[in-house]
Amino acid sequence: MKQIPGGICAAKGFTASGVHCGIRKNKTKKDLALILSEKKAAAACVYTTNLVKGAPITVTKNNVADGYAQAVICNSGNANTCNANGIEIAEEMCALISKELNISASDIIVASTGVIGQTLDITPIAEGIPALAKELKADTNDAAEAIMTTDTVPKVISYSFEIGGKECKIGGIAKGSGMIHPNMATMLVFVTTDCAISPAMLQKALSADVKDSFNMVSVDGDTSTNDMVSVMANGMAGNEEITAEGADFDEFCKALNAVTTYLCRMIAGDGEGATKLLECIVTGAASKEIAVTVSKSVICSSLFKAAMFGADANWGRVLCAIGYSGADVDVNKIDVSFKSVAGQVDVCVNGAGIDFSEDIAKEVLTEKEIQVLIDLKSGDASATAWGCDLTYDYVKINGDYRT
Amino acid sequence: MKQIPGGICAAKGFTASGVHCGIRKNKTKKDLALILSEKKAAAACVYTTNLVKGAPITVTKNNVADGYAQAVICNSGNANTCNANGIEIAEEMCALISKELNISASDIIVASTGVIGQTLDITPIAEGIPALAKELKADTNDAAEAIMTTDTVPKVISYSFEIGGKECKIGGIAKGSGMIHPNMATMLVFVTTDCAISPAMLQKALSADVKDSFNMVSVDGDTSTNDMVSVMANGMAGNEEITAEGADFDEFCKALNAVTTYLCRMIAGDGEGATKLLECIVTGAASKEIAVTVSKSVICSSLFKAAMFGADANWGRVLCAIGYSGADVDVNKIDVSFKSVAGQVDVCVNGAGIDFSEDIAKEVLTEKEIQVLIDLKSGDASATAWGCDLTYDYVKINGDYRT
Repeated sequence: MKQIPGGICAAKGFTASGVHCGIRKNKTKKDLALILSEKKAAAACVYTTNLVKGAPITVTKNNVADGYAQAVICNSGNANTCNANGIEIAEEMCALISKELNISASDIIVASTGVIGQTLDITPIAEGIPALAKELKADTNDAAEAIMTTDTVPKVISYSFEIGGKECKIGGIAKGSGMIHPNMATMLVFVTTDCAISPAMLQKALSADVKDSFNMVSVDGDTSTNDMVSVMANGMAGNEEITAEGADFDEFCKALNAVTTYLCRMIAGDGEGATKLLECIVTGAASKEIAVTVSKSVICSSLFKAAMFGADANWGRVLCAIGYSGADVDVNKIDVSFKSVAGQVDVCVNGAGIDFSEDIAKEVLTEKEIQVLIDLKSGDASATAWGCDLTYDYVKINGDYRT
Repeated sequence: MKQIPGGICAAKGFTASGVHCGIRKNKTKKDLALILSEKKAAAACVYTTNLVKGAPITVTKNNVADGYAQAVICNSGNANTCNANGIEIAEEMCALISKELNISASDIIVASTGVIGQTLDITPIAEGIPALAKELKADTNDAAEAIMTTDTVPKVISYSFEIGGKECKIGGIAKGSGMIHPNMATMLVFVTTDCAISPAMLQKALSADVKDSFNMVSVDGDTSTNDMVSVMANGMAGNEEITAEGADFDEFCKALNAVTTYLCRMIAGDGEGATKLLECIVTGAASKEIAVTVSKSVICSSLFKAAMFGADANWGRVLCAIGYSGADVDVNKIDVSFKSVAGQVDVCVNGAGIDFSEDIAKEVLTEKEIQVLIDLKSGDASATAWGCDLTYDYVKINGDYRT
C-alpha cells in the first residue's frame, strides 16, 4: 500500500467538482460539491446517532438501502435540518442531479452542512448544478473545498493497494471542524474506490472501521445532526469481487483504515480554533471498552484541552478525566507520559506524580502534535483517540457562528 | 423563611475564620479556613464519584461515619490528591486542629482544593493554625474567602426558618469555579445550622437535595477529585429534634434547598471565565430522568455555551444537544424560548424554527442571567440545570493554571 495523489478522483471512473452557487454569502467560498462514478457503485454509509437528524440523512438512507449509489451531491452553508420542508429540498437536490447527469435519483447520496434551522433555498442549487456538472474533472480538490465550513484546510488523501494482482485505489475527502463528537458515525466523509467489493462486505468494512477511526475523534463533545461517512466502490479496478471475509477483505480494510485514520487526524488537528493535534494512546487496559472509554474521556476534557493549549504538563487533569470516565480502572497503577517530536517526559507513575523537568515538558508540549501515553497496567487492550486543544479561537468562532 | 445576614456563622454556636498561612504564594490570598461548632453536631456529607479521590475525602468519610462532627478545616492552593503521603497529611491536619481546639480528631471534616499531584507541605498549616483559632469570630466571611481558588467572589448565604415555634438558622459557603460537573456530590460546600435533626435525617435531606441542586450544575463537564458538600447541625436552636419525615423535616429540607440553590446559581454564574449564568428549564418531560438528561446536555454543550457568550440565538445548538443527549424525546414536539429580564423570544416550535426578531433576541441574550426554556410537550416532569457561557477567559485561566 502506498500514498498516491488524486484524492477522491484517484480511483478509476470517479470525477468530482465544486462551485460557488450562492448559498454562502462569501463568493470566494465554494458551497456545492459533486462526486460522480462512471458506473453504479456498491455503497455503504454510517450516520449520526443524534435523534435530531438532518433531512439529507433520511433521503440518503432511503437511496442507498439497495446497496448502490452513483453520485454524491453536498452543499455547505446550510444543514437543511429542523426545517418544515427539508426532505422535499433534499429530494429536489437529487432530482436535479438525476436530470442533469441522466442517472437514477435513487442512486444519489445527498448531504448538507452548515447552520441548523434555516430553510435551504433550492434556487441557487438549481442554478449552480449545470456549472457543477460541466466542471467534473478527474484531478481536482474543488469538492473537498466546497464541503468546508469552519475548516481551515481541505482534507484529502488517497492510497493504492493490490487485490489479487490488480492495483486498486482508494481516496477520501472530509469536512469537520466543530460539533465533532461522532458516535457510531461522524462528520461528512466521502470515500471512493475502484476496488470490486459487494455492498454487504463494503458496509461490514465501514461499520467496523468507524469504531476505531471516526468514533474516536472529538473536537468539542457535540455530536452533529448531519454526520455521515459514505464509501462508493465501483469495481473498475477489475479485481475479483470481494464477497466474503479473507485476505482480500483484510487488505481492503487496511486500505480503508489508512484513509479514515489520516482523515481523523486531519479533522482533529483542524478542530475549530485548534493549534494542536492531541493523540491519546491508552495501553494495558483490561478490555477494549475500558481503553476506548479512558482515551475518549481524556481527549474530551475541557481542562486537559486548555492545559495543552498552554503547553502546561498538568497531568492531574489526565488522572481526573480517567477517574470520572466511568471505566473500572485501578488508579494506583496508572502511568502517564507526554510525547512529541521534541521527546518524551514521564510525569506520573502508579497514580502519583514524579519529578520531571518543567523545561523539557514545555519543549515537548510546544509542538503541533502531542501524544499523551496512558498505561493502565491491567491487561492487553489498547485504543487511540484524537482531539485538539481548546483555544481562544474556538470561543471566537462559536460565539457568533451564524452572522 | 427569610434571608438573613451571617453566612455560616448565622446559626447559633458557629464561629469561623480564614487566614493566609503560606500554601498559596500570593500573600493577599487567604488559604486556610476553619469552621467550629460550640457543641458536637449531627453531620452529613456527599462526595465526588470520581475514582481518583483526594486524600481528605477518605479521612473525612472515616471521621463522619458515626454521624457527628464539630469542625471543618479546609485549605486552598493544593488538592492533596495523587500524592504518596496524602492521607498522612490530611490526618495531621485533623490532629493539629484537635490539639489546638481540644476537640476529638475524629470529629473533624477535612477538605483541600487546588492543584493535583503535588505534595502538601504541613509546615505552613501547622504554623497557621494558632492564628486561625485565634481569629474565630461569629461575624466573618474570611472562611468563604480562604476556600476560593479561581473564584472571583466569595459565595455566602443564610436564611432563618421556623420549626415547632423555634427560630432556626441555616447558612452556607461554597467554592467552585472550574472542574465543575458534580455527579451525586459536588465542589466544596459547607453548610451550618442550629436546627436539631438526627444524623440519619440530615443525611437523608442532603442526599435528596443534591440531586436537584449541585448535581444540576456544570461549568466544564469535568468532575473534580475533591468535591464535597457537608452540613453540620448542632441543635442549638432548641427545636424538638427532627427524627422522622413530616412537616418539620419538610420545612428543614425547604430551608436547606434555599441555601443550596442559591449557592448553585452563584457557582454557575462564577464559572471560570463566565460572563453569564445560564439556567435551562425543561418542562413537559415524560419522566424526571428525561428532564434531567435534557437540561444537563444543553447546559454542557460547548457550542451552546459559546453561542450564549456571543449573545447568538442559535437555537439549533439547543436542539442538537437535546438530540444527542440519549434521552428518548419526540424532537418534532419541542418548543424552545430564550428569556431574561429584557424579555422573552420564542425561537422554535414543534422542532422547527419560527421567525423572530434578531434584534430582540440580541437584547434578551445580552443580559447577565439567561433562561433557556424547553417544553418537550410529552408529560408533566421538569428539571432545572445551571451553567455558564464558554469564554476566552475560561481558556486563559486553564491554559496555564499551575504557574
